[in-house]
Amino acid sequence: MHRDRLDETLSGIDADGYLLDASQDNANQLYLSGFTGPDPFLTLYADGRVHLLVSGLEYGRARSEADVDTVERHADYDYEYGGREDRNDMYAAFVRDKGVDSVLMPPRGPVGTADALRDRGIGVGVDADDLLREVRAVKTDEEVAAIRDAQTANQAAMRAAESMLSAATVAGADDDADAGVLLHDGEPLTSERVSTAIETTLLEHGCALDETIVAGGEQAADPHDRGSGPLRANEPIIVDIFPRSKATKYNGDMTRTFCVGEPGETAREWYDLTERAFEAALDAIEPGATGEDVHAAACEVYEEAGEPTFRTDPETETGFIHSTGHGIGLDVHEAPSLSSGGEELEPGHVITVEPGLYDPAVGGVRIEDLVVVTEDGYENLTDYPVEFVVD
Amino acid sequence: MHRDRLDETLSGIDADGYLLDASQDNANQLYLSGFTGPDPFLTLYADGRVHLLVSGLEYGRARSEADVDTVERHADYDYEYGGREDRNDMYAAFVRDKGVDSVLMPPRGPVGTADALRDRGIGVGVDADDLLREVRAVKTDEEVAAIRDAQTANQAAMRAAESMLSAATVAGADDDADAGVLLHDGEPLTSERVSTAIETTLLEHGCALDETIVAGGEQAADPHDRGSGPLRANEPIIVDIFPRSKATKYNGDMTRTFCVGEPGETAREWYDLTERAFEAALDAIEPGATGEDVHAAACEVYEEAGEPTFRTDPETETGFIHSTGHGIGLDVHEAPSLSSGGEELEPGHVITVEPGLYDPAVGGVRIEDLVVVTEDGYENLTDYPVEFVVD
Repeated sequence: MHRDRLDETLSGIDADGYLLDASQDNANQLYLSGFTGPDPFLTLYADGRVHLLVSGLEYGRARSEADVDTVERHADYDYEYGGREDRNDMYAAFVRDKGVDSVLMPPRGPVGTADALRDRGIGVGVDADDLLREVRAVKTDEEVAAIRDAQTANQAAMRAAESMLSAATVAGADDDADAGVLLHDGEPLTSERVSTAIETTLLEHGCALDETIVAGGEQAADPHDRGSGPLRANEPIIVDIFPRSKATKYNGDMTRTFCVGEPGETAREWYDLTERAFEAALDAIEPGATGEDVHAAACEVYEEAGEPTFRTDPETETGFIHSTGHGIGLDVHEAPSLSSGGEELEPGHVITVEPGLYDPAVGGVRIEDLVVVTEDGYENLTDYPVEFVVD
Repeated sequence: MHRDRLDETLSGIDADGYLLDASQDNANQLYLSGFTGPDPFLTLYADGRVHLLVSGLEYGRARSEADVDTVERHADYDYEYGGREDRNDMYAAFVRDKGVDSVLMPPRGPVGTADALRDRGIGVGVDADDLLREVRAVKTDEEVAAIRDAQTANQAAMRAAESMLSAATVAGADDDADAGVLLHDGEPLTSERVSTAIETTLLEHGCALDETIVAGGEQAADPHDRGSGPLRANEPIIVDIFPRSKATKYNGDMTRTFCVGEPGETAREWYDLTERAFEAALDAIEPGATGEDVHAAACEVYEEAGEPTFRTDPETETGFIHSTGHGIGLDVHEAPSLSSGGEELEPGHVITVEPGLYDPAVGGVRIEDLVVVTEDGYENLTDYPVEFVVD
């Protein structure tokens, strides 16, 4: 964590303290507390110190693991299980005990806690800028190393997926399966089988997984379709993997699009165009450029080729229908955004670059690497070939 | 989903509508919308109808997947990427468009959205009872079947873990490893290796995983310690697995405590005591009994044996230091709670029963099954032996 950056940012707020009420599932909480509590707990930043309030069950682990100044437990405020109002009284007492009469909470902090504190005379404002998100966006060397490790696991998983596709044969008229379906070990090769190979590889490399996308044909035309059922030859198959290191909780992210056999003419054009948009976006990355600039670089390649984007048609359902990329860290999607309105890039920002084209009539194509913004450009944290046709 | 139960519950609220702003990571959102959106989206319940507002990227999939009455996208409100105030204007317009001037949000709904709607003249109250949580607590037959499936995968994973322990040998003075360390395939058997076997088995059975607990010795004395490093003979090893079905998103949960070799006298007494507390808690489960009653049944066994509980000492860090169990469904921890203040049990409640004892000087022991409350008692959804010493 950039503690200096945190102190500098939070010392300027218009309140006595900054309050989080969340579990480890919330990246702000994990970042500020350094504690992996599975149920919601309170973290209060005030006067340059970080204070934790956890249940008795978490007390021992919080004291040894959490990277904070003080740890208290519910029993310190005479609270037991159960009563909602009692719990809110405890929260208010905890805040006041630190000399705090007003707090900011992030926009996605719980309204129940905010209103309960207000009812008890504590001022609660919304930190509409989500300042911790901004602090988190700029990574330390240690955080970059954690993301690089997750991306290394990702490369092994992508290799496992590509190997399965590479080893596949294509069902002919004589096979039990539909002609054109990919076969592996005599059985149809499904999205699910490839996902399992990916996920098993990630586990072996110390990564947990949310979901994986292995989507072919029409399914690939929807950027968030996870894919299911048999994969087929001669059409693009999108493989998008975003693993999370179990040890560090930092994420990797990479997409490749593969084709077993001969892609159609349009698919091949789309791939070449997407590779050009990908290169154009990468070339635009440097400190001082904005996320909007990088997005524009990718959009221009597509728009010049006559493909619709959200810039030319906000309602389009085909073409380039998402942003060019996003920050990544403890969250898979975090600041900065490579999109219209995207903020200025700074050294230490870790971002994905992932242009793509989609149309149910053709399928989908996407190429994605992960890079860190440096003093004079960027460093690519991804080491995996960009190749469409699988041999 | 119990749609009748939902309608009955939400028709009685003191507001025009019920609003969720969350991603699929939020169980209320997943339940009400039936949509697996990875980024936050709005779901509004009003006049017996459910309305969705999603980004353009999610629009196609939301229309085909979501179990709702209407789906709209940001472009329908002329909103593009970026502006925060524009987004809040869109949210307010969406709500008003449904004839809604006041909404309830659950306690953990985002304060940023709540305050922004208030600023725009829409009344926002906090549903302090978390009504959707109450609706979700009572499962349909289909939901019970989904949980049973996750628990079946869990059993396969527990078997994989027990098999590794069963096949282990114990390092002697001549081995490279410390004497007493378990060996498997010639290498020390670590918590991490057992976890990987568990998680790989879960993947093969269609389950994703959050975390797994495989904790021996002193680590087992902390109920939330995940465990790490070599496991040893003659001491209790807690294995707690809570898999989530990728297809249904419902969870299973089970704990067993194993010992390779000869447990010490105290560990053996603890196991017997915990098995008695476990049976006593199960015996107390029936409609009309409260979660507090079931918790009391387990606590009494421990207290009569002189072991501390949170009832006798809220600050104890040894003994029975958690609740007896919790509801489970789309969340691993949901209503009802088997604890002091725990609510009345109803047919369709699916709950864990998991007493345990903890002390760093001895280690930890916990036994956990998953059951569904029926009209005249309960049905155990777990089919796995309760045995301490691994042969």
